[in-house]
Amino acid sequence: MEQAVRHFQEELEALKSRLLEMGGLAEERVRASVEGLVARDHALIDTVLTGDEPINRLHIDIDNRCFRLLALYQPMATDLRAIVAAVKINSDLERVGDLAVNIAEAAVRYLGHAPVKQLIDIPRMGTIAQTMLRDALDSFVKRDTEMARSVLNCDDELDALKTQVFRELLTYMLQNVETIEPALDLILVSRHLERIGDHATNVAEDVIFMVSAQDVRHHPPATP
Amino acid sequence: MEQAVRHFQEELEALKSRLLEMGGLAEERVRASVEGLVARDHALIDTVLTGDEPINRLHIDIDNRCFRLLALYQPMATDLRAIVAAVKINSDLERVGDLAVNIAEAAVRYLGHAPVKQLIDIPRMGTIAQTMLRDALDSFVKRDTEMARSVLNCDDELDALKTQVFRELLTYMLQNVETIEPALDLILVSRHLERIGDHATNVAEDVIFMVSAQDVRHHPPATP
Repeated sequence: MEQAVRHFQEELEALKSRLLEMGGLAEERVRASVEGLVARDHALIDTVLTGDEPINRLHIDIDNRCFRLLALYQPMATDLRAIVAAVKINSDLERVGDLAVNIAEAAVRYLGHAPVKQLIDIPRMGTIAQTMLRDALDSFVKRDTEMARSVLNCDDELDALKTQVFRELLTYMLQNVETIEPALDLILVSRHLERIGDHATNVAEDVIFMVSAQDVRHHPPATP
Repeated sequence: MEQAVRHFQEELEALKSRLLEMGGLAEERVRASVEGLVARDHALIDTVLTGDEPINRLHIDIDNRCFRLLALYQPMATDLRAIVAAVKINSDLERVGDLAVNIAEAAVRYLGHAPVKQLIDIPRMGTIAQTMLRDALDSFVKRDTEMARSVLNCDDELDALKTQVFRELLTYMLQNVETIEPALDLILVSRHLERIGDHATNVAEDVIFMVSAQDVRHHPPATP
C-alpha cells in the first residue's frame, strides 16, 4: 500500500510537470505570435503557424495520465480535485495554443497591408495575457490561492484594454478606409488575447477550487 | 454492493439529465440571441443579456455531481470516461452560454445603426451551430459515435461560412464607411457562432473518446 502511495505521488508530480511544460509552450507561442506581429517578423510567425504538434501531443498525453491516475489509484479529496483541475487546465492550455495560431493568422494578413499608425495597446495586452498564464500555472503548482486571485484581478484590466483598443481602431477605420482591413485584424488579435486571459482566469478559478474547495466562479473577484 | 451500483447508476442518470438541461438552455440562448438580431427584437436580446443565472447554477451543480460520483463510487472504465467527459462537456456548455451573451451584446450595438444590406449567412450559421450542439449532446446521451462524427463534419461548413461572411462584410465596409460599425459587429457575431461550433466539436470528440476510448482530437475528421 505504501508503495502504491509513492507511485501515485510520483505520477502526480509527473503530471504536474507535463502541465507546466504545456503551459510553457502555450505561453511561448502567445509571445511569439505577438512579437512576430510587432516586429513584423514573418519567420517568427511561421514558427507559430507550423509548430502546434508538441502541444497537441502533450494535450493527449496529459489527458491519458489523468485517466490513468483516476482509474488506478481512485484518489480522494485533495488529490481527486487536483486531477480534475488538471483535466480542465489541460483543455484551457490547448485552446491557448489554438488562439496563438489565430493571432499568427491575423498577423500574416495584417503584414500584407500598410501598418496602422501604431499598435496601440496590443503589445501590452500580450504581456498581460502571458503574465496571467504564467501566474495561473505557478499558482497551480504552488497551490497558492493568493496568486490565483491576482490573476482574476488582471482579467478586468485586459477587458478594459480590449474595449479601448476597439474604440481607437474604430476611429482609424472611420477616418481612413485604407486602415479598415489591417485594423480589423488588430481587433481580432485583441479579442484573441482577451480570450487567452479568460483561459488563464479559468485556470486560476480551478486552482482556488482545488485548494480551498471554494467555488469562485460566477461571483465577482475579491478586491484585495 | 448491489445497492451502491444502483445508487451510482441513478446518480449518473441524474447527471446526464442535468447536462441535457444545461445543453437545452445553452442552445435556447444561442437561438434567442441570433433570432433577436435577425428580428431586431430588443426584448428577446434582453432575455439573453440578463438570463445567465440558471446556466451558471447548473454549471456548478454538474461539477459538484461529477466530483461526488468520482469520490463516492470510484468508477472504472466506461463510467469513469463518462464522468470525465461530463466535466469537460459542462465547461463547453458554460462557454456556449457566455458566447450567447457576447452575440447579444454585439446585437445591441448592431441595432443602434442602420442595418447592413442583409445579414448574409449569419442566420444559417446560427442554425448550424444549434444543430451541432443538439446533435453533440444527443450523441452523448445515446452513446452514438456516428452522430458525434456528423458533428465533426459540420464544423468545416461553419468555418467556410465564417470566411465567406468575413469577405462579404469587408466588401461592404470598403464600399460604404457607414457600414463599418454594424458590419464589424456582424463579423464578431460570426466568430462567436464559429466558436460555438468549436465547443460542439469538443463535446462530440469527448463522446467518441468516451464510447470507443479512441482519441480523435488533433486528427482530421473521418470522411463519410
